[in-house]
Amino acid sequence: MYRDKTCGELRLADAGKKVTIAGWVQRTRKMGGMTFVDIRDRYGITQIVFNQESNPELFEKANSLGREFVVQIQGTVEERTSKNPQLPTGDIEIIADSLNVLNTSKTPPFTIEDKTDGGDDLRMKYRYLDLRRPCVRKNLELRHKMAFEIRRYLDSKGFLEIETPILVKSTPEGARDFVVPSRMNPGEFYALPQSPQLFKQLLMVSGYDRYFQIAKCFRDEDLRADRQPEFTQIDCEMSFVEQDDVIEMFEGLVKHIFKYVKGIEFNEPFLRMTWADAMRLYGSDKPDLRFGMEFVELTDLAKGKGFPVFDDAELTVGICVPGCAGYTRKQLDELTDFVKRPQVGAKGLVWVKFEPDGSVKSSASKFFTPEDFKAWGEKAGAKPGDLMLIMAGEAMKTRKQLCELRLEMGNRLGLRDKNVFAPLWVVDFPLFEWDEETQRYYAMHHPFTSPNPEDIPMLHTDTGNVRATAYDIVVNGTELGGGSIRIHDALLQDEMFELLGFTPERAKEQFGFLMNAFQYGAPPHGGLALGFDRFVSILAGLDTIRDVIAFPKNNSGRDVMNESPSPIDQAQLDELKLTLVEEK
Amino acid sequence: MYRDKTCGELRLADAGKKVTIAGWVQRTRKMGGMTFVDIRDRYGITQIVFNQESNPELFEKANSLGREFVVQIQGTVEERTSKNPQLPTGDIEIIADSLNVLNTSKTPPFTIEDKTDGGDDLRMKYRYLDLRRPCVRKNLELRHKMAFEIRRYLDSKGFLEIETPILVKSTPEGARDFVVPSRMNPGEFYALPQSPQLFKQLLMVSGYDRYFQIAKCFRDEDLRADRQPEFTQIDCEMSFVEQDDVIEMFEGLVKHIFKYVKGIEFNEPFLRMTWADAMRLYGSDKPDLRFGMEFVELTDLAKGKGFPVFDDAELTVGICVPGCAGYTRKQLDELTDFVKRPQVGAKGLVWVKFEPDGSVKSSASKFFTPEDFKAWGEKAGAKPGDLMLIMAGEAMKTRKQLCELRLEMGNRLGLRDKNVFAPLWVVDFPLFEWDEETQRYYAMHHPFTSPNPEDIPMLHTDTGNVRATAYDIVVNGTELGGGSIRIHDALLQDEMFELLGFTPERAKEQFGFLMNAFQYGAPPHGGLALGFDRFVSILAGLDTIRDVIAFPKNNSGRDVMNESPSPIDQAQLDELKLTLVEEK
Repeated sequence: MYRDKTCGELRLADAGKKVTIAGWVQRTRKMGGMTFVDIRDRYGITQIVFNQESNPELFEKANSLGREFVVQIQGTVEERTSKNPQLPTGDIEIIADSLNVLNTSKTPPFTIEDKTDGGDDLRMKYRYLDLRRPCVRKNLELRHKMAFEIRRYLDSKGFLEIETPILVKSTPEGARDFVVPSRMNPGEFYALPQSPQLFKQLLMVSGYDRYFQIAKCFRDEDLRADRQPEFTQIDCEMSFVEQDDVIEMFEGLVKHIFKYVKGIEFNEPFLRMTWADAMRLYGSDKPDLRFGMEFVELTDLAKGKGFPVFDDAELTVGICVPGCAGYTRKQLDELTDFVKRPQVGAKGLVWVKFEPDGSVKSSASKFFTPEDFKAWGEKAGAKPGDLMLIMAGEAMKTRKQLCELRLEMGNRLGLRDKNVFAPLWVVDFPLFEWDEETQRYYAMHHPFTSPNPEDIPMLHTDTGNVRATAYDIVVNGTELGGGSIRIHDALLQDEMFELLGFTPERAKEQFGFLMNAFQYGAPPHGGLALGFDRFVSILAGLDTIRDVIAFPKNNSGRDVMNESPSPIDQAQLDELKLTLVEEK
Repeated sequence: MYRDKTCGELRLADAGKKVTIAGWVQRTRKMGGMTFVDIRDRYGITQIVFNQESNPELFEKANSLGREFVVQIQGTVEERTSKNPQLPTGDIEIIADSLNVLNTSKTPPFTIEDKTDGGDDLRMKYRYLDLRRPCVRKNLELRHKMAFEIRRYLDSKGFLEIETPILVKSTPEGARDFVVPSRMNPGEFYALPQSPQLFKQLLMVSGYDRYFQIAKCFRDEDLRADRQPEFTQIDCEMSFVEQDDVIEMFEGLVKHIFKYVKGIEFNEPFLRMTWADAMRLYGSDKPDLRFGMEFVELTDLAKGKGFPVFDDAELTVGICVPGCAGYTRKQLDELTDFVKRPQVGAKGLVWVKFEPDGSVKSSASKFFTPEDFKAWGEKAGAKPGDLMLIMAGEAMKTRKQLCELRLEMGNRLGLRDKNVFAPLWVVDFPLFEWDEETQRYYAMHHPFTSPNPEDIPMLHTDTGNVRATAYDIVVNGTELGGGSIRIHDALLQDEMFELLGFTPERAKEQFGFLMNAFQYGAPPHGGLALGFDRFVSILAGLDTIRDVIAFPKNNSGRDVMNESPSPIDQAQLDELKLTLVEEK
C-alpha cells in the first residue's frame, strides 16, 4: 500500500499521528515561506504544508508540483490555525516530512472542479479526466449504491438474479436490433437484446417464480438527446401474481431505495391513477405531480358564444395558474410563443386574468361576458390573482399541448423542485394503439400483455377501448418503468396475435420458441422493468441519463474518447464472410 | 396472489391451517379411493390428497391431471400418517377442498427429475424444461447467492461497481472480437469487450480507487468443451497498491464466499507458490493440491546407466503413487496407454514397484540395479507398497505429460474429492512467452503487466527470465482467476511495447487513448479478474461451466432452443450497408 490514510478521513482527533497519504495535486499555493498543497483522492481533499525554513529541499520540490501530479506524502497531522469548515478534513493539515512523485501529469485541458471551464465535447474526449470531477464521481457512487440496495431488497424478497444472454435471436418486430455476425455460422447473426423479455417469461415457465436482473439492453435507434444505444434496466418477473401484487412489490422497492439512498420515507401508498384520468387531468401518461394545475374542461361552457376557435373545438381545456394575474403583456406573449413553437405546435392561447380586485381581463373578452369568465373560474377554482390559460382543438392533441404549457408554468413558478419526489402508478392503459398509416392496431406495450379480464368480451367489438393489465410507475413527470401481467393462456395469445395482424406463421417464426414453451405449463405471471439510468438520474436531480453513465456515447452513437465505432481489418470481414457496400 | 403458501414451507406446526398453494404436478398416484398429487414449485414439493368418498367430483378432476399441469389448490394441512423424512414438507399433506387448473401441459419430452431420462441435446432444445429440474435450479440459486455475497464483500471494502460499455472499440490483438456493425456510422464497427481491462485502468486514472464489476465478456473463439462465446467475469482494480495488497483483498473475497455460501472457513492464508515451483513440482501453473505426489527429478540419478530414453533426456521425472505397488500388468498397461494418448502425447512410461517385502520390480530393470531403484525411491520418499511412475524427455513437455498422469492417478485413487477445496496463489509468472513460429516475445498476460521491479535491469539482457508482477488464484487444478500490477510509468510502458515488437505507431493506434490517459497522472494500480462461471462451477462441484449458465450456447455457438444465430432480413443488411459473401 502506498498509503495508510485516504485524503478524506483525517480529523482533529488524528492530530499528532504520522501518516502516509497519496493522491492527485488539486492545487498549490505559495505564501511566503510556506507552500500549501491540496491533495485529492476519491474520498476527499487534505491540505499538506511544506515549510521552507525547516526543510528547504522538500519545499523546493513541492513548489515544482503541477496540477494532477500523483504524489505520496508522509507527514504529521496537525491542527490548522485557520480551519476550513467547508471541508470534512478542514480542521487539520499534514506537515510534510517526505514527498514522492509517483507520476507527473500534463496540464489537463480543463479544470478538475465541479464548475469546470471545459465544454461538453472536450470533457467527453477526455472523459477519464471529467470522471475525476467530484460531481461526476458522486453520480457514479450513487449508481453503485442504488444497484446495491436494489439487489439487497430483491434478494430479501426471494428474487433470484439470473443472467440472460447478450447474444440472442434477432426479431424483426419493434425497434431495430444491433446484430452480430457469427463467424462460426456464416451468413447468420445474433442480435443484442432490446430487453430480456422473452427470457424472463421463459424463466417463469421454468418455475423460477421470482426473477430479476440489472441488465444491459440495446436499441439501434436514432438517438435523441436522452437515449443511449446501450442502457441498463432493472428487469423483474414474478409468477402466480396479479397486478396488485406486482405493484406492491415494486412500490416497496422504490420506497426502499428512497429510504436507504436518499433518506426519504414514503409512508403512504403511492397514488394510482388510470391512464384515462392522467390524460384528462394532465394531458400525459406521465404526469408531474409535484404541483397541481389540473386541467379544467371548458368545452360546454365555452361553446356557442361566437368564438370560432372554441365553437369548432372538440375540446376546450385550461389550467389555473395561481398568483399570475399580474403577468405582463410581454410575459403572456412569451407563453403564446411557447405554445406556438413547433415542438408544441399549438395555434394559440387564450388567457383570463382574475384580478385581485375581482375584475376579469381576457384575450377573448370580445366573445365572452364577465359572467362567462366567472363560470370558467368557478369551475377551475380560480382565486383572485390567478391566471387561466386555455387551449382548444382536437382533444388528444390539445391535451398534449396544454401539458407542455403546464410543465412550463411549473418551471416558471419554481414548482418542479429536484429535491421533491412525487411518484405515482398509472394503470389501465389501453391494450391497443391504432395506427392511421398502416390502418391496424399495434400492442401499446407488447403482444404478451394481458387484457383486463373484464374487457376480454370487448376484444373484437370495441378493440380500441380494451384496457390492458399494464402499469407504469412515474416520478416527477418521467416514466421510471412499467410492466404488465402477461398472457399465459395459449388460446388468448393466439387471439391477440390475430388482432395484431400476425399470421400464425409469422407469430410462430417470431415467438415460436416462447409459444412452444407455453404449451408445457406456463404459470400466471407478470412483471416490470425500471430504467436504471433514469432512476439514478432522477435521484441525482439530473436532466439526462448521460451524466450517470461512466462512458456514454454521443448523439451519433460514438465514443469520442476511444473513437469507436471504427473500421475493421479486411481479414476480419473476410472471416465473417461480409463485404461493405460502397457509398455511391 | 394465487397462493398464500409455497410448496416448500408447510410443516407439522401448520396442521389444521387452511392454505392455498400453486405449482406444477410432479406426479399423481391413485391408491384405492385416494389420489395423491405431488405439487412442485421452486421452494419444494407438497403432497395433496383427494378423497373419493368425501368429494367424488374433485377426486375425478384430480385423476385427470397430467404431469406438469399448473394447478392452484385450496385445502387443509394435516399430519401425514406415513411421513417422508426425505422431504422438508414430508410430515404433512394437504386435504384438498378445491382444485383449479391454471394451465395444462403437453407431456414433457423428458422427466423433470435430477436423474432425468433426457439426453443432452433434447434438454438443451427444451432448456426451459431442463431448468425445472431441481439440480439445475440449485446451480442458478448458488450463482445468485455467490454474486450477491461477492457484491456484499466488495461493497464493504469500498469498491464501487461501475458498468463499462458493451459496445467498445475493436482491437486486432489477442483473441477474436465479436463485432457489431454501426448503422449510424456505415462501414464502422463496434466490438464486444473481451474484458473491461482498458476501462478499468482508465477508471484508476480517473481516481475511482477501487472498482469492480460482474461483467459480461465475449470471445469469438472456436469453442472447446468448456468455453462459451459470452462469459461472466468478476473484474476488479485498485489504486495505490502492490501485489500483496491485491492478493490479500481477493483472498478475503474467496474466503468470504466459501464461508457465507458453503460454510467452509479457511483460517490460514492460502499457500503462495512461484510459477517455477509449480512447474517443477506439479508440471502445471494450476496445480491440484488436494493431493500430494509431487514430482521427483531423477535426471542425474538415472543418467549414464545405458538406458537411452533417460540418457538422452533433458529431464527424467517421476511421481510416487502411494500403495499402488500391487498394480497388475493390465493396470500398468492402461497407464502406459493413457500417457500415449494424443492428448498427452508421451512415448512411454517407466514404472518401479516397491514391494511390501522390500524387493523392487521395474519395467526398466534391464538397465538399473536394485540399488539404483532404491536411490530413486529414497529421493521420492517411497515406502514399501508404493509405485513410482517415471517419464523422460524435453523438460517442459515431460512435466506437462507427467502432470496429466498425476491427475489421472489422483482420480483413480479418489483423491480429487469435489467437496474438498485446495486454493493457492501462483506468483512470479514469466513476463514474456517466446513464440518459436514468429520468433518473438509475447506478453504472457497482457502488455500492461508490470515486470517484477527486481528484474527490470534484465529486460533487454535476459528477457525470457524476467518475472511479472502477476498472480493467479488456483483451486483444485483450475485457474479461478488472475491479475497483475500494471505499468503506470509511460517510459516503462514504451519499453514494453518495443520488446513486444509494437512500433510506436501500432501501439498508439491500438492503445492510444489509454496511453494518452496515462499522461495525465496515472496512479500505481493493479487488479485481477475471476471467472465467475468457473467460480460457481467449482463450488457446485461441476466439471463444466455450461451447467451454471441459464441459457448456454453449444459448441458451435448456437442456442438450439431459440435457433440463434439466424439469417436476418435483406432490409436490415441494406441499412447496415453490408452484403454477404456467397459460399463457392
